[in-house]
Amino acid sequence: MAPGLVDRFIAIVGETNVIRDAAGLAPHLVEDRGLYKGSSPLLLKPASTQEVSAILKLASETGTAIVPQTGNTGLVGGQTPRAGGSDVIVSLARMNRIRDIDPVANVLVADGGAILADVQKAAEDVNRLFPLSLGSEGSCRIGGNLSTNAGGTAVLAYGNMRQLCLGLEVVLPTGEIWDGLRRLKKDNTGYDLRDLFIGAEGTLGIITGAVLKLFPRPVGHQVAFAGVGSTEDALQLFDKASTLCGSALTGFELMPRIGIEFTTRHIDGVRDPLSEPHPWYVLIDISTSDSAQTAEVMVHSLLEQGFEAGLVRDAVIASSVAQQKALWTMRESMSGAQKPEGGSIKHDVSVPVSKIPQFMAEAEKAVLAAMPGARVCAFGHMGDGNIHYNISQPIGADKQAFLDRWREINAIVHAIVLNAGGSISAEHGIGQLKRDELAHVRSPIEMELMYRIKKSFDPAGIMNPGKVVIAP
Amino acid sequence: MAPGLVDRFIAIVGETNVIRDAAGLAPHLVEDRGLYKGSSPLLLKPASTQEVSAILKLASETGTAIVPQTGNTGLVGGQTPRAGGSDVIVSLARMNRIRDIDPVANVLVADGGAILADVQKAAEDVNRLFPLSLGSEGSCRIGGNLSTNAGGTAVLAYGNMRQLCLGLEVVLPTGEIWDGLRRLKKDNTGYDLRDLFIGAEGTLGIITGAVLKLFPRPVGHQVAFAGVGSTEDALQLFDKASTLCGSALTGFELMPRIGIEFTTRHIDGVRDPLSEPHPWYVLIDISTSDSAQTAEVMVHSLLEQGFEAGLVRDAVIASSVAQQKALWTMRESMSGAQKPEGGSIKHDVSVPVSKIPQFMAEAEKAVLAAMPGARVCAFGHMGDGNIHYNISQPIGADKQAFLDRWREINAIVHAIVLNAGGSISAEHGIGQLKRDELAHVRSPIEMELMYRIKKSFDPAGIMNPGKVVIAP
Repeated sequence: MAPGLVDRFIAIVGETNVIRDAAGLAPHLVEDRGLYKGSSPLLLKPASTQEVSAILKLASETGTAIVPQTGNTGLVGGQTPRAGGSDVIVSLARMNRIRDIDPVANVLVADGGAILADVQKAAEDVNRLFPLSLGSEGSCRIGGNLSTNAGGTAVLAYGNMRQLCLGLEVVLPTGEIWDGLRRLKKDNTGYDLRDLFIGAEGTLGIITGAVLKLFPRPVGHQVAFAGVGSTEDALQLFDKASTLCGSALTGFELMPRIGIEFTTRHIDGVRDPLSEPHPWYVLIDISTSDSAQTAEVMVHSLLEQGFEAGLVRDAVIASSVAQQKALWTMRESMSGAQKPEGGSIKHDVSVPVSKIPQFMAEAEKAVLAAMPGARVCAFGHMGDGNIHYNISQPIGADKQAFLDRWREINAIVHAIVLNAGGSISAEHGIGQLKRDELAHVRSPIEMELMYRIKKSFDPAGIMNPGKVVIAP
Repeated sequence: MAPGLVDRFIAIVGETNVIRDAAGLAPHLVEDRGLYKGSSPLLLKPASTQEVSAILKLASETGTAIVPQTGNTGLVGGQTPRAGGSDVIVSLARMNRIRDIDPVANVLVADGGAILADVQKAAEDVNRLFPLSLGSEGSCRIGGNLSTNAGGTAVLAYGNMRQLCLGLEVVLPTGEIWDGLRRLKKDNTGYDLRDLFIGAEGTLGIITGAVLKLFPRPVGHQVAFAGVGSTEDALQLFDKASTLCGSALTGFELMPRIGIEFTTRHIDGVRDPLSEPHPWYVLIDISTSDSAQTAEVMVHSLLEQGFEAGLVRDAVIASSVAQQKALWTMRESMSGAQKPEGGSIKHDVSVPVSKIPQFMAEAEKAVLAAMPGARVCAFGHMGDGNIHYNISQPIGADKQAFLDRWREINAIVHAIVLNAGGSISAEHGIGQLKRDELAHVRSPIEMELMYRIKKSFDPAGIMNPGKVVIAP
């Protein structure tokens, strides 16, 4: 990169808001799983939408590649600069304000760099709920949540980030600012630009602000944990739960026996609350707005129905907030609990809810045929059809030799997913990890339409190049 | 149109599936309000997605303008051919099947020409709810509902058509078929094409199929009707209702005294259930999934809270399904009840919910200043911020002279809407009616992005030309 150009970028944000040294840049060049390592000459920390605009304008004029980065918690390498050394990182870390909050209209306006936990807290302070909840909520930021259309544990009742957003402010690759910060539930005036930027992983522009939906805080909350005999039984129980609870069903998570073994073995404070082992487990989360009693009646009725139908083998209802948290900790630590068991090959897939049992059976058979002794630890958001299909290495196997088969195992599992009408990326996105696979799972005409959009929004090709969609 | 070309179009669908005579074409050249009258040499009724594809391919090759038409119930002229005589109408009337229904996955797959009431009925037959509900549900069709992102009376709890759709099948202007009939709640694989077609009013392609979301049928249902002193009181009551009921609040409709007078005067069977008149009224609809009792307790608690806070002056709770229907009839006949009162100038606007009182006060003041004696009959979906701001002519005024001021009055009301951060088309779309206004309410960069999308999807410019977005 020409020194003169570096100076022009620095002049936009000021010398103190720039990182150029190797030690300072290092944490921004890698992502959590260690799958990608990039390089970059320069990280810029703009303080305003106008500064982001000036950066992108200069980038478009000079053909400088830009990688937007918020919390750097993404799981597919979308936020990591490419190896090669010329991508300039734009960090929104300084644009972290809650701009406005209106509890009557149930909206909150945040900077793209606002931390998710700060948004949750701001909503709580006015007795409202912002329902997006993720493991990384203490460090991930709203712009990244929107750019990846984040999911998490409350999607069943509240939807994913796409459903939680009313309006956006985006700086386009050309530097132009789109002020789409509308606070409206209903607005049918032309094409839906908002949803194009949501989930585009920073390839169409940088999301610098957003209008988010708030909800009343539930007053009743119950968490139950039940052992079931099969994924078919879990599915039937889910059907009963959604019929009984409607949108009060705020979580329905599926877990396998091996996941309970891993978490009780490796995670402090996690214990199996049931006396006997069961093949599968479900965690049921119910939230009600009218009274605490409604949730209590619901959870008891549901388990009663489940026992009567022979679907539930054993169950507990958390009797305190601490116990509720402990049950959720078990679920949320399931991925981490695989680490001490050696290598883990991961998938973030979804299928129609009714096809989960069939998918689980077929995938396990195929994986074990390809790799005898592999330990399938598939768990996830059953109510959304979203399974984190993780596979721990066979006991005693060589970790690297196991991980070297990542793509091969992916291909096996993804083929079964696609056959069931599913998605190879339910909530993590495409980034670099699944970029080459995208063209195989989406049709030529879909890829063509995506290229056309990319080209017409980013004619200079500077926005997060090499991610999601690349020229044919 | 060259006879040879007409024959080529006819050959695609067969002579018996074509309308060419003036009498047969007549109902397809006008819309309900009589605002637009177009002309057309030919209406084609394809039987399959493949036939639609062949039609659009030929149209793109020959530069023939195409107007898609489903139930012809749109309110902005989007489905009406232009005057001039060369637009070919493509009707989806024969593509009216329910293709598939999966109550466990809660999805239904329908042709673009399926009638909304048939979809509702098919869902009911498997004990599920498809919540979209409109006055025209007996004749409007799914492709049109999607193309206009239809709203209706259940948006508060279930969202509008955009939120009710999981996947689409679209024939692109070039004739290529995009099979995006995914049944997934979570799918983050590239740009969101689906939401571009939803609400595009047939200018980017023809929606020939859709995967729709189903919901459990509520078991508890309560409808209440309350007299309130002001829009401020209605807003405070809405806040209490949404806090208490959460997503069990399935309707919160605002009506003015004059609307009650119009409906009781002109609509058979409608009577005012309250003994004294009140300045404003709200209709509250509550649906619960767990038990009938929950809804009953909720509606009583809400009215109690409302009385205690001095917000509710008087109220009734419908004690039978017939009474529930009667209350809804009052609300739904409010637009029709204006007809015997003379001309009516209409607006379909939205503002942030918290700004409804301010908007209502400012708009009334401005309208009365411009037109003394005008009778404002503003009602609508308060919970969505969506007001049908209708104005009946002054008593004894000349109807045509009144209607001639449509654009002038629109401009006055829309200026106040925009000042409140609102939308000039909450649920009806742009079509021809608001096309020229669109460029004044959306920024140059928004218009520019829309043009770019239009051009890249429809290079030959054949899809519903003259609607929504036109070249700069």
